[in-house]
Amino acid sequence: MGTFLRFKVSEDQIYQGILEDDRVFPIEGDIYTRWTIGKQGLPLDAIKILAPCIPSKVICVGTNYRSVLAAKGQAVPPEPVIFLKPPSAIIGPGEEIIYPGGVEKLGYEVELAVVIKDKVKAIRAEEALNHVLGYTIANDITAKDFMTGGPWTKAKSYDTFLPLGPWIVSGLDPDNLHIMMRVNGKITQDANTNDMVFKVTDIIAYVSNIMTLMPGDVIITGTPPGAGLLQPGVIVEASIEGIGTLVNKVVLQNQEN
Amino acid sequence: MGTFLRFKVSEDQIYQGILEDDRVFPIEGDIYTRWTIGKQGLPLDAIKILAPCIPSKVICVGTNYRSVLAAKGQAVPPEPVIFLKPPSAIIGPGEEIIYPGGVEKLGYEVELAVVIKDKVKAIRAEEALNHVLGYTIANDITAKDFMTGGPWTKAKSYDTFLPLGPWIVSGLDPDNLHIMMRVNGKITQDANTNDMVFKVTDIIAYVSNIMTLMPGDVIITGTPPGAGLLQPGVIVEASIEGIGTLVNKVVLQNQEN
Repeated sequence: MGTFLRFKVSEDQIYQGILEDDRVFPIEGDIYTRWTIGKQGLPLDAIKILAPCIPSKVICVGTNYRSVLAAKGQAVPPEPVIFLKPPSAIIGPGEEIIYPGGVEKLGYEVELAVVIKDKVKAIRAEEALNHVLGYTIANDITAKDFMTGGPWTKAKSYDTFLPLGPWIVSGLDPDNLHIMMRVNGKITQDANTNDMVFKVTDIIAYVSNIMTLMPGDVIITGTPPGAGLLQPGVIVEASIEGIGTLVNKVVLQNQEN
Repeated sequence: MGTFLRFKVSEDQIYQGILEDDRVFPIEGDIYTRWTIGKQGLPLDAIKILAPCIPSKVICVGTNYRSVLAAKGQAVPPEPVIFLKPPSAIIGPGEEIIYPGGVEKLGYEVELAVVIKDKVKAIRAEEALNHVLGYTIANDITAKDFMTGGPWTKAKSYDTFLPLGPWIVSGLDPDNLHIMMRVNGKITQDANTNDMVFKVTDIIAYVSNIMTLMPGDVIITGTPPGAGLLQPGVIVEASIEGIGTLVNKVVLQNQEN
């Protein structure tokens, strides 16, 4: 069990650490292999929390909650539908989601994110949790305007389209977690991960049979009912039981860019 | 002008180097920022050449040759169609392309690959070449079985589905390069990059307006006519003028896996 985070104390001082009782203890080593906790703890308000990992890839699962499929009148797919988001889309807690110029429908989706612990290929579902470091929260931001057939990459890949954090919590049961989204304080998504079509272990096995997973790689597991659109200025708060809340504000792209 | 490569001398000795007259000179520093050439050159046959870079992401352009569109009776698209391949799919020259179990149509596509030099966001086409380190050769391997609508990720992302190399050559004119593929010695693709719908500079500008590009990121730019299917055992040789030839063999996945 542990709560792992990345943080900075100043512009060139970035650390990995463990959160214990609202204090952050920098570690030596790295969270994927071996580490020791430093003795000096820092209060949370003395640091800036960053996205908790730097993945070599981010694999995403499309529609994966039974109640979403039911509402759309769609059948359960025979296997997960996967897509990729680029690591350059990741932002941390408190960072701004940039609403791109030329986009009219910017969607949010709270999702349980799985952080991979070690290099794995072609594992079975029964072994999958041995290769999970822990879980964090993702907000899969999408320019819905561009979800018009063909690959989804343009719609999914703008900078800031993957808020991630605030930290990685190990030892949770991924199949039974309350998952919520608030937009400007109003609850818009309110569900449990037990509604997933493909469980976390199934997803890891499926993906690892296609591509080798690396330490720090992230798999986001689909969103429950209630995903909707964002307007510039709103605050989005994505929460998952046992992890916490990921808060980001939406701002309109500077048209000078 | 320069020819940059990554290579290993033994399992734990991996270097970046410069190729000059069939000798490889290890560099100190890194190829994206500043480097100096070591004095001791090695003959090419004393090293194992690796894929020339480790990108944080690989962006790919779909159908991008006019003659391919014409043959399919398709109109020129208003903008590039982009998708991602995971870095875990990359293999170097001489490595084996694994034909996955359960796949019946494994496609090859020779493509000009652009290697980005520095961190760039939202640049104009006129500035794009200032941010290119050089060019290498890609073979966009695809499980055509899975190109059935929705995101293309499963079809494009298996391990070994992105042979890349053998090295990065700077200073080329990307808009006028002879590009070829041989399968078991027989020429199957034979064209020139001047047939691209979206030129390299246009593609870089387009992509950089969506996502921040990082040093070593790779953009592959679409394939000319003649892309076809592979069988286990064949040798594929992808060649581009001024760069060289990328050779890989196709082997059937070990069904034990």
